[in-house]
Amino acid sequence: MILTVTLNPALDLTYHVDTVVPGATHRVSRVDERAGGKGINVARVLHALGEPVLATGLLGGYVGDQVRQLLDDTELPADFTTIEGHTRRTVVAADGRDATGFWEPGPQVSAAEWDAFCEHFARLCAQAQVVVCSGSLPAGLPDDSYAQLIGVAKVAGAATVLDTSGPALAAGLAAGPDVVKPNALELSDLVATVPAGTAVVASHGPDGLHAVTPQGSWRARPPQPIDGNPTGAGDACVAALANGIHRHTPWPWRLRDAVALSAAAVAAPVAGSFDPDLYQQLRPLVTVEEC
Amino acid sequence: MILTVTLNPALDLTYHVDTVVPGATHRVSRVDERAGGKGINVARVLHALGEPVLATGLLGGYVGDQVRQLLDDTELPADFTTIEGHTRRTVVAADGRDATGFWEPGPQVSAAEWDAFCEHFARLCAQAQVVVCSGSLPAGLPDDSYAQLIGVAKVAGAATVLDTSGPALAAGLAAGPDVVKPNALELSDLVATVPAGTAVVASHGPDGLHAVTPQGSWRARPPQPIDGNPTGAGDACVAALANGIHRHTPWPWRLRDAVALSAAAVAAPVAGSFDPDLYQQLRPLVTVEEC
Repeated sequence: MILTVTLNPALDLTYHVDTVVPGATHRVSRVDERAGGKGINVARVLHALGEPVLATGLLGGYVGDQVRQLLDDTELPADFTTIEGHTRRTVVAADGRDATGFWEPGPQVSAAEWDAFCEHFARLCAQAQVVVCSGSLPAGLPDDSYAQLIGVAKVAGAATVLDTSGPALAAGLAAGPDVVKPNALELSDLVATVPAGTAVVASHGPDGLHAVTPQGSWRARPPQPIDGNPTGAGDACVAALANGIHRHTPWPWRLRDAVALSAAAVAAPVAGSFDPDLYQQLRPLVTVEEC
Repeated sequence: MILTVTLNPALDLTYHVDTVVPGATHRVSRVDERAGGKGINVARVLHALGEPVLATGLLGGYVGDQVRQLLDDTELPADFTTIEGHTRRTVVAADGRDATGFWEPGPQVSAAEWDAFCEHFARLCAQAQVVVCSGSLPAGLPDDSYAQLIGVAKVAGAATVLDTSGPALAAGLAAGPDVVKPNALELSDLVATVPAGTAVVASHGPDGLHAVTPQGSWRARPPQPIDGNPTGAGDACVAALANGIHRHTPWPWRLRDAVALSAAAVAAPVAGSFDPDLYQQLRPLVTVEEC
């Protein structure tokens, strides 16, 4: 089973509106409501691929209850712990051209809540072959929170994938995850601190991926740029990498899958979904060169 | 007791942000969450004045549950019926200068739900001396919904105040409410259709009120314009008028109260609240002239 961790999930609200004008009042013609957060998106992609997956993390308040309900409605296997603070909402007003976003600050997590989550996580790790840690940390959690989880996963014998940024990435990297997925911008700052044994898969956006692994280095490129919504493409990439570890596929195969699935996610309207026909169609067309 | 009706309430979310820029993502520094809707604002003002009040209307979904919870948290007496559809949210992004609003469409109400509400309303009317119908109608309800409620209230012996706009106002007016509160713009279209026995109190915004009643006509003006947030000033005005009916005060007294309370609401940061010191201070300074 692949276990995905989302410590700062969200209730994602998409408001369909006419042109956004500051100072004006906008009638929303349609509201799309969705459980959000990078780890949840990864789990959703894996679930759609038919892979065994479980989403965990922290949820709180009535907004957290609604996220739980939405996960349940879509039959995504999930087992989150409950915190006092309220899970955040994100509101995106989409006018067909631009997306104007408003991100709530999210909850404060106490030390006791973090300890309770770590215990819960350790129990779930006993059934996991791969653990994916994705996204930002909520307020109150130390920068090394992902490092702690990676440590627990290692003890349980699970492989680990880390997809975060900033101090959480730098501190998490020190714990030696099996795969880390920084964007190309962050890569240059980190490259000196990557532990031996950690594979680095850097995203070059629409130009594909660059992987530096203990087994070799590769550059993977899609056959053509794909138009659409890049939100969630990184999560689809992580889903493919986690799946590759789970199925013990060779790196070039994983990267081909990751590029095709990312591109198929760009072509889908919302994060965590992908165009399955495009995925199958692109897969043999992705080029992977050793470098 | 004064019964206020809010058929299309909302969960009002105020997002404190830096300057709103279309196409950008905005971090929200603070979220204020409040039960919204004109009838709820009227009830809140009356409750703050220490008057006996009960808020009723329609609530649905988890957002409706949260509105119920917030009413409960503020100890505002409320007895809403439950509908299948989801109560809407309103999001206002306030950057200190402008307020950019996003209004969700709100629920669809079925004929059976409306019938159930009317029965519930009739029971509550038995204890009410004054009924206040405020705000827009949700989808699915006929234009004459307020007319139906006014008819029920009349049978129960309660006086009625109607504060709405458009077709709901035109149709509601035909039922002969005791007081109707159109804005000055709508007044000209309606003046020919006002039934005998209905008092018309027209708002002139910061310039006060103009009342044409079976007992006489008056113009009431505040001593000075008040800076602030005009949202909710109309609801404070309606609260004062309903209270005046309830306490059988003469019209000039009611209008003085209504103008002072509106101005004190403009000076308060959120709809449904008012500055009590300013209210007491302005009350004797409001001018009321017969015209």
